[in-house]
Amino acid sequence: MKKVDHIGIAVKSIDEALVFYTETLGFQCIDIEEVQSQQVRVAFIDANNVKIELLESLNENGPISKFIEKRGEGIHHIAFGVHSIQERISELKEKGIRMVNEIPREGAGQSRVAFMHPKSGHGVLFELCEKLHMEEK
Amino acid sequence: MKKVDHIGIAVKSIDEALVFYTETLGFQCIDIEEVQSQQVRVAFIDANNVKIELLESLNENGPISKFIEKRGEGIHHIAFGVHSIQERISELKEKGIRMVNEIPREGAGQSRVAFMHPKSGHGVLFELCEKLHMEEK
Repeated sequence: MKKVDHIGIAVKSIDEALVFYTETLGFQCIDIEEVQSQQVRVAFIDANNVKIELLESLNENGPISKFIEKRGEGIHHIAFGVHSIQERISELKEKGIRMVNEIPREGAGQSRVAFMHPKSGHGVLFELCEKLHMEEK
Repeated sequence: MKKVDHIGIAVKSIDEALVFYTETLGFQCIDIEEVQSQQVRVAFIDANNVKIELLESLNENGPISKFIEKRGEGIHHIAFGVHSIQERISELKEKGIRMVNEIPREGAGQSRVAFMHPKSGHGVLFELCEKLHMEEK
């Protein structure tokens, strides 16, 4: 694990939450995009040393919609930046970690992502995230 | 807000969770201490660009114990590093933010901390955290 790439936060409305993150906290929104495979619209906030990823569901049956229905808006996951994601998944499985995704899937910001099962992460949903292009942040 | 100082995670047992963070994920534990005023024992993990703070309740009635009872182990808060915490609190209040602590209290790692109410943070419990000594991390 290189570092924490981003913290994912489930929100009902990106437009409403952005007012808080930009005007109240003073951070910048650096990208907004849709990830159809995960049924979400996401906004990336630059919090200087780490990004905050706001997640809004694109429909009523998506995973973020269900998360909010069950627990309300709030922190959804922590994503670690990694190299060679498939190798990292194999290593984790060898260590007894249960993966939600054993094969990486398309993520936001031109990345490949895989989630660990929260039961393997002491209640935290951890994501592995490999960028397809190099970046400093 | 300078940056994210740490991500606070509620765990039943620091000793058990540490095995996951150090042996499985490969991070280092840099400090363990008790914060009596918040009824917690905390362990700081160095995740390179940000710290992870594991929180274990010192007793059955503490806030972390109640959090785990209600929601299970999991992410508890996000802490922003700040300078001049009392001024930051005043600014946030002027912007209509509801604070849990209007006056900073003693935090872990020789800091002064204040929590925003999650209703003001779109469901996220945000902490302001001012270190009493300069540090790079």
